[in-house]
Amino acid sequence: MAGSVSGDIFRVTTWGESHGTAVGVVIDGCPAGVKISEEMIQKYMDRRKPGAVKYSTMRKEDDEIKILSGIFEGKTTGMPISMLVVNKDHRSADYSEIASYYRPGHADYTFDMKYGFRDYRGGGRSSGRETIGRVAAGAVAMLILEQLGITVNAYTKSIGPVSISDDGKDMDYVKDSPVYMPDKEASVKAEEYLKRCAQEKNSAGGVVECVVKGLPAGIGEPVFDKLDANIAKAVMSIGAVKGMEIGDGFRASQSCGTENNDEFAIKDGNIVKLSNHSGGVLGGISDGSDFIFRAAFKPTPSVAAKQKSVNKAGEQIDIEIKGRHDPVIVPRAVVVVEAMAAITITDLLFKAMTSDINKIKDFYK
Amino acid sequence: MAGSVSGDIFRVTTWGESHGTAVGVVIDGCPAGVKISEEMIQKYMDRRKPGAVKYSTMRKEDDEIKILSGIFEGKTTGMPISMLVVNKDHRSADYSEIASYYRPGHADYTFDMKYGFRDYRGGGRSSGRETIGRVAAGAVAMLILEQLGITVNAYTKSIGPVSISDDGKDMDYVKDSPVYMPDKEASVKAEEYLKRCAQEKNSAGGVVECVVKGLPAGIGEPVFDKLDANIAKAVMSIGAVKGMEIGDGFRASQSCGTENNDEFAIKDGNIVKLSNHSGGVLGGISDGSDFIFRAAFKPTPSVAAKQKSVNKAGEQIDIEIKGRHDPVIVPRAVVVVEAMAAITITDLLFKAMTSDINKIKDFYK
Amino acid sequence: MAGSVSGDIFRVTTWGESHGTAVGVVIDGCPAGVKISEEMIQKYMDRRKPGAVKYSTMRKEDDEIKILSGIFEGKTTGMPISMLVVNKDHRSADYSEIASYYRPGHADYTFDMKYGFRDYRGGGRSSGRETIGRVAAGAVAMLILEQLGITVNAYTKSIGPVSISDDGKDMDYVKDSPVYMPDKEASVKAEEYLKRCAQEKNSAGGVVECVVKGLPAGIGEPVFDKLDANIAKAVMSIGAVKGMEIGDGFRASQSCGTENNDEFAIKDGNIVKLSNHSGGVLGGISDGSDFIFRAAFKPTPSVAAKQKSVNKAGEQIDIEIKGRHDPVIVPRAVVVVEAMAAITITDLLFKAMTSDINKIKDFYK
Amino acid sequence: MAGSVSGDIFRVTTWGESHGTAVGVVIDGCPAGVKISEEMIQKYMDRRKPGAVKYSTMRKEDDEIKILSGIFEGKTTGMPISMLVVNKDHRSADYSEIASYYRPGHADYTFDMKYGFRDYRGGGRSSGRETIGRVAAGAVAMLILEQLGITVNAYTKSIGPVSISDDGKDMDYVKDSPVYMPDKEASVKAEEYLKRCAQEKNSAGGVVECVVKGLPAGIGEPVFDKLDANIAKAVMSIGAVKGMEIGDGFRASQSCGTENNDEFAIKDGNIVKLSNHSGGVLGGISDGSDFIFRAAFKPTPSVAAKQKSVNKAGEQIDIEIKGRHDPVIVPRAVVVVEAMAAITITDLLFKAMTSDINKIKDFYK
Repeated sequence: MAGSVSGDIFRVTTWGESHGTAVGVVIDGCPAGVKISEEMIQKYMDRRKPGAVKYSTMRKEDDEIKILSGIFEGKTTGMPISMLVVNKDHRSADYSEIASYYRPGHADYTFDMKYGFRDYRGGGRSSGRETIGRVAAGAVAMLILEQLGITVNAYTKSIGPVSISDDGKDMDYVKDSPVYMPDKEASVKAEEYLKRCAQEKNSAGGVVECVVKGLPAGIGEPVFDKLDANIAKAVMSIGAVKGMEIGDGFRASQSCGTENNDEFAIKDGNIVKLSNHSGGVLGGISDGSDFIFRAAFKPTPSVAAKQKSVNKAGEQIDIEIKGRHDPVIVPRAVVVVEAMAAITITDLLFKAMTSDINKIKDFYK
Repeated sequence: MAGSVSGDIFRVTTWGESHGTAVGVVIDGCPAGVKISEEMIQKYMDRRKPGAVKYSTMRKEDDEIKILSGIFEGKTTGMPISMLVVNKDHRSADYSEIASYYRPGHADYTFDMKYGFRDYRGGGRSSGRETIGRVAAGAVAMLILEQLGITVNAYTKSIGPVSISDDGKDMDYVKDSPVYMPDKEASVKAEEYLKRCAQEKNSAGGVVECVVKGLPAGIGEPVFDKLDANIAKAVMSIGAVKGMEIGDGFRASQSCGTENNDEFAIKDGNIVKLSNHSGGVLGGISDGSDFIFRAAFKPTPSVAAKQKSVNKAGEQIDIEIKGRHDPVIVPRAVVVVEAMAAITITDLLFKAMTSDINKIKDFYK
Repeated sequence: MAGSVSGDIFRVTTWGESHGTAVGVVIDGCPAGVKISEEMIQKYMDRRKPGAVKYSTMRKEDDEIKILSGIFEGKTTGMPISMLVVNKDHRSADYSEIASYYRPGHADYTFDMKYGFRDYRGGGRSSGRETIGRVAAGAVAMLILEQLGITVNAYTKSIGPVSISDDGKDMDYVKDSPVYMPDKEASVKAEEYLKRCAQEKNSAGGVVECVVKGLPAGIGEPVFDKLDANIAKAVMSIGAVKGMEIGDGFRASQSCGTENNDEFAIKDGNIVKLSNHSGGVLGGISDGSDFIFRAAFKPTPSVAAKQKSVNKAGEQIDIEIKGRHDPVIVPRAVVVVEAMAAITITDLLFKAMTSDINKIKDFYK
Repeated sequence: MAGSVSGDIFRVTTWGESHGTAVGVVIDGCPAGVKISEEMIQKYMDRRKPGAVKYSTMRKEDDEIKILSGIFEGKTTGMPISMLVVNKDHRSADYSEIASYYRPGHADYTFDMKYGFRDYRGGGRSSGRETIGRVAAGAVAMLILEQLGITVNAYTKSIGPVSISDDGKDMDYVKDSPVYMPDKEASVKAEEYLKRCAQEKNSAGGVVECVVKGLPAGIGEPVFDKLDANIAKAVMSIGAVKGMEIGDGFRASQSCGTENNDEFAIKDGNIVKLSNHSGGVLGGISDGSDFIFRAAFKPTPSVAAKQKSVNKAGEQIDIEIKGRHDPVIVPRAVVVVEAMAAITITDLLFKAMTSDINKIKDFYK
């Protein structure tokens, strides 16, 4: 069954394996008239490159995006946009050993169960390189959202036990932080923690937070296609994400109604909420406040420490995973979270255009 | 845009408002040959009835399910199954006041923003009564899963600050616990906490945990239609859910790789995992272990305490919500969580049947 | 697999069997603010009633539409619209015999092959009564199209060998013609032909033509979701339709390019086509001219004449189908063709709203 | 809105413009374990090459298919299959003139109306080169169908007024016929007709017939996703198709019930039909007979003869289309018809696997 397609109106299909010829994406349903160039997309690609973040994989990746269709005279034509990155650095020899056993925490075993065999080279389709297509599509979505005054910004909230301070995020610092944290002190502590992880042949997880500003009220379709429900699916579909929450999230389950409710008031003639525990969504529909969510990432499953496993011959073995692996994937995942949010919100913005016959009449006048 | 449809192969469409003529559901894509009767569905309906759980709304609901199509000689025919519950107890007068203002924590404001006006009677479509269709469809899904040896069981994990003990769940106790907890001591404490909430005109949230047993390995479609991603969407689409997590969930973000990875071993000739931090899913595909997830519910937004709001005339007002409201929705939501899990897993089980050409050849032999 | 759902944005799900409790439809994705009443829908229901057309089934049907949800204060709310007609006249005894054998030209055999058994009462789901849901949904679509200045009108073009004159359609006469033909002379001849068919225990087929006026240019999505492709699917999904064509259709295959091309010209400052061989569509997108298509219906398969068949015991038998059957279904199918066109065009009109970023920016301004 | 995606389970997305960098396709939902190589796909590509058929465009195309993902060790992995053909021969200068006006019979005008502008080079996305992706995907579908004992064969039934004989098709002759006709006499006459068309600066249309053998009974989903309805959509989505029919098609509308019904009988212990007027489908579900349909193609709209048109300045002009154009597209379209049939049937075969709970239980045993 087709599982590599996301969205209904703005429809994104990713393809490609870690060590295949290329990885890529096709966007179908992008409106005509959006200014797009390879340079604009490349900026986002560079943010997920290992070079951009210390403590990420040492593998040298040179991810150059190519646009193959859907652009004419510098603008989208409304036709499918096909983009790809050629895989340059795939020394399959590095990975030959993993063909024979199932790595704990990886999808090796489940792929074999489902498909009968798997492309084991570098993790195949379940490699982090699969996110290249997501990020390229996310970049296009960002360019659309920009036109509508909407911004999507994610950053690292915590790595292992090290969390940013609750008050006073320094958003300008994110680009300087090797771990994408908006908090210098926490960033330094996180780096130290990661150093220790690496020394101990271990790895760390963390939490990414994302804030969407400028989203108009009215986005999200009750009952099953709520804004928060669609974002939950999009974010949980990123490899290694084990939890997600909107606004106060799990904390809301311990608070009481009078604390958790956001009261309404009039400010400068407009209806406003006096707080934002809901994270910008009520009944699955955006309420005009900032839309805020968090995603919890598990630690990188590839660790150099010794682990128990089984091989294809059905024998119990001890393994030590070699090769270049990120001690944490959270910093590189920040742009992937943004991409999934942008893709999902673009699709929902388009869906929300048919909620009211009066607006449709205006449109077709 | 259509938002009341869930699933692709096993497709569920719910309809109806709290105080309309009826609420109901159509299931399209149910296989032929499943034994189903109104009595079998009614059992699930009764579990979401207020009578089943103390501390739930005092409103007397008499939710009698009627099957209108898709069943012949006691079995499903493969044709759409239409079911409905007639709304009996809708004294619209009780709710007339809420037409004029926006209740904090409710969808009143966002519905008006999106649709231009709203059916304000009893919350209209965003009322808890909308879940009647989900539960009826979930009951049908349960009957299918039963045939395949799969069970879905949810229970209350916490209410406000009161959580069940980590070890030694007493699953037999759940049906005796007024709050659906598998832990007598916690259940008593939770009741006391809810009594205090009610006295203080306040409300509580909580966490529901769900365990799926018997799910074969191989269910879930990479990349975007992963098992966990689809469950996340399904569960987040339940009103009041603000967070969800799989396996160790948010806790995984603070652990390290060697702790979080589930090592493989051979047991009785089969490959097994020595732990289940992953919650039964690897790379978005079920791994044959128990599939475990949790959903965080916010406190009931309808509280009797005084709150600030605005009315349609654009004036700031103080409101006190009257009427019969649950101090907590978690116990009644347990069966809804089960229903959404069953619906989602049934759809994914059907999708997983085309992953391997050899199995397809066997099927069509 | 779900097959009773049509459309993506304006999504229609029909349900119900000929001799079940009721037949009905749920429309999800109808915009808010459309004025709708049961009376408005009933008008369309009455057009497919046997009473409306002579030579149709003598079975007395009293198809009273009930709206159960999605309407508040006389207008759609944007929520699912659930409608049903209770089946009153189902004397199952009439049909008991057909349970034992496969009627030629009917779906009895294929339903058994697919589902293992079937609801044989009155044809079950493959009965003409299934179209009740289509017509009710089509009526809602018509009310939406009306707001946008679009009309959909179908009529009988031919019955058996009797065809209307190519020039000078008398559209006012359609409502007076017992066979829905816009041509008095042809109508009389068609009646005579049908009389003969009935005497000979036989049945007739025919062609329905449909003209959509006011459709703006730009509707239809290349490549696979073209206007003509979607209409083709919608129309071929009506029971008994064996062919469909757009504009000149099959005739175009015999003409040459210079004849078939519609030349462009300027008229009153606007671009116009000097002919309409294309039937209002170019490259799958509406061109602003009348959109015209035809559907070919096979003869009613239920005939009183003796036919060869096989029974469930695997014996070859002769059968004579008893009961009340239309000698032709074409006149009653006219409103069903209109309904399917209206449903399909409404969905495509909504889809066409996101083709151009500049229009989206205007919408969200 | 996304319109370049076909299918739900076996999902095909095509992309690319005539004179862009490349044209291609992504197949998502192909089962694992299917043997596939570029050579196998190339065979189908070659059948749509102009070199394969005289009287087709003289433009030299060198369409070499490249597989970029989804194949490992010579077999599909269940992951998306990305394929492309680099556009080599795109001398844009040839087409610069058409940027300024709207060619009759082409999509120039409707693209401008819908998207605000268009990629005019070589027809952009509405060029015949778009079908490269369809044919590549169709080749993969064919390899799947082959495993299940199903074959799909199309051929030219008529060109302009020249039709093959009704009895005695010589299927072996098709590959020798420059116009893909299974009838030598008709083929020679068709060639002569086309010669005359070319001399007169004109073009011709025709009819393609397709026969699917080995399709098991039970394929197709009532009500809206019938086998014939889905094939109708797939075939009408091919550029230049103006009509389609199943079995006796339009002829059925003029026959009577006793002629048109296919009687059942027992032969060698099996239920068989004594004729096949239905074309292999009853109630939208395959009945185990040959599935037969026809598609009517309009004449190539690009003709060298003088035509009236309008330019972008709003002036009425006379045009004479230059360049290399097929006097008929039917012979090259034969493989495209096969491809669309194969893609559609594969998707429906997969959908039909969940019609019966007993078969699902067997599958998961």
